Amino acid sequence: MDGKMNGLWLEDRKMTFRTDLPLPSLEADEVLIKVLLGGVCSTDLEMLRGYYDFKGVPGHEFVGKVVDDNGHPELMGKRVVGDINISCGECERCLHHESSQCMNRRTLGIFGYDGVFAEYCKLPAKNLTVVSDSISDVLAVFTEPTAAALRILGQIHIRPSDKVIIVGAGRLGLLIAQALKNTGCELKVVVRRAEPAAILEGWGIKSIYPEEIKGELADIVVEVTGSSEGFNLSRSLTRARGSLVLKSTFAGDVNVNLSKLVVEEITLVGSRCGNIPAGLRALSTGLIQVGEMVDSIFTLDQGLEAITRAGEPGVLKVLIRP
Amino acid sequence: MDGKMNGLWLEDRKMTFRTDLPLPSLEADEVLIKVLLGGVCSTDLEMLRGYYDFKGVPGHEFVGKVVDDNGHPELMGKRVVGDINISCGECERCLHHESSQCMNRRTLGIFGYDGVFAEYCKLPAKNLTVVSDSISDVLAVFTEPTAAALRILGQIHIRPSDKVIIVGAGRLGLLIAQALKNTGCELKVVVRRAEPAAILEGWGIKSIYPEEIKGELADIVVEVTGSSEGFNLSRSLTRARGSLVLKSTFAGDVNVNLSKLVVEEITLVGSRCGNIPAGLRALSTGLIQVGEMVDSIFTLDQGLEAITRAGEPGVLKVLIRP
Repeated sequence: MDGKMNGLWLEDRKMTFRTDLPLPSLEADEVLIKVLLGGVCSTDLEMLRGYYDFKGVPGHEFVGKVVDDNGHPELMGKRVVGDINISCGECERCLHHESSQCMNRRTLGIFGYDGVFAEYCKLPAKNLTVVSDSISDVLAVFTEPTAAALRILGQIHIRPSDKVIIVGAGRLGLLIAQALKNTGCELKVVVRRAEPAAILEGWGIKSIYPEEIKGELADIVVEVTGSSEGFNLSRSLTRARGSLVLKSTFAGDVNVNLSKLVVEEITLVGSRCGNIPAGLRALSTGLIQVGEMVDSIFTLDQGLEAITRAGEPGVLKVLIRP
Repeated sequence: MDGKMNGLWLEDRKMTFRTDLPLPSLEADEVLIKVLLGGVCSTDLEMLRGYYDFKGVPGHEFVGKVVDDNGHPELMGKRVVGDINISCGECERCLHHESSQCMNRRTLGIFGYDGVFAEYCKLPAKNLTVVSDSISDVLAVFTEPTAAALRILGQIHIRPSDKVIIVGAGRLGLLIAQALKNTGCELKVVVRRAEPAAILEGWGIKSIYPEEIKGELADIVVEVTGSSEGFNLSRSLTRARGSLVLKSTFAGDVNVNLSKLVVEEITLVGSRCGNIPAGLRALSTGLIQVGEMVDSIFTLDQGLEAITRAGEPGVLKVLIRP
């Protein structure tokens, strides 16, 4: 390590590949991680559209290897995945076991903290979960989005008798579909393409095209399209007294008829990050499968192509291997 | 009864006083009720602004006396209050004990069913709750909005340790304040006038003016202003992972940043009608008090003045006595 590394850099909504990035400098409790594999998420793409004005190394889905344990020898040389929220440990939220909503938090590759599309990244030791040898890098890199999918089950109670519709069958939608299928609910996924429909069919999950929708109403609808049209469709599919779970982050506001939410007593549930050990567990036990979801693996110096590829319609998970 | 009656009439967003309205004609299970007292609700005023395109007798808050029991002798001559939702009894919602969200419902004085600002109204017998002699008409006429206030407690669990802010101290807001105070939570009500602040102080409830708000964040916020400004203020007062309860119905959409709901994992809860016997019980046991809330009582032929009065800023409950 000569103090410089290769990596992607986001500034003024533009991404570049750089060979002169400084190595992460460690503060107390932070460990240095060699990135083995990173995953491109729709949030990364939304940042290019101005969702967050972030300057730094993007990327927050990763599996890596601890190469400087900075006083945490139990982690040295281990493969790890991590919670993307860097919390202060002292605010009201942190003290009430809600550190992922820390009031002073920084977020890996999204806000105030460099991310994983580089040779090295860092995270506080408390954020890390060790990955057992039986789990491949390709499986482990799905831990963060899998945890986010499972987060829904931590927020609302889905019963085997519930009708559930997921609107959107992209990289996150397909993970959510598997997570919700495990509840035994009556599940349908709104798709726009044959490819995700085929993947869903392989998992025993029904899909439906928007033009086939006729008077459908679900107890629980999950919006995961990242578009205002997707929100409006999701809203129309939610029955009175039903719940509409919002999983997409995207730039811009949406016009909402709040009175209709009142009259129909709809509950809107914002849903973000999940529990990393739970995500890793679901992948390691096979509750959630990812094999069909890997579109391509790019090297880091092809990172910009990876980002472009991930933004093409219908493309599922694009991985970057430094 | 000569087959004609006096009453208010809403058509094309205009209200008139008429002396030639037909008496309600009873279908099976409907009983005829002489209206003793009606209450003006903000929803009545919103209908004049186009919230619903209703043509008929407006008004849905009432206490009355059964004058034609139509085969339900146990109701004859009784004073009654009633559920405003006329349900089909046969749809999925009705069969699952959610008749207030009946898919084929009509709503008293709001949608497809004449209301109570007239000498007589009608309702299905199953909608009615008998009022005991110890309860005054003025108290009983608050049953429907009191039930709507209590509905919040049927939807979300408010703990004694919760910080709760109610935004809006109008006729409904003051009922909600009393309902929520009874949970033992740490409660504040955002007011814009001295009068409701004084009423709240009398009940031992803290109030706060918008300009005094500084970095306040509540676990639960209740929006009851009926304005998009009120929604935006309410939203800004809701902590991450908190709940924002929507109690206002008003015409028009509101721009909502859905991504912020996702990132902060906010839950929006639409809240409408409550259980009528529960509302009557809270009034009869004194859990909820209304004395300070009556602004004025108008006769039916002064009904248009009553509506005008109810629309003036800061005016609380206006009643109409046929």
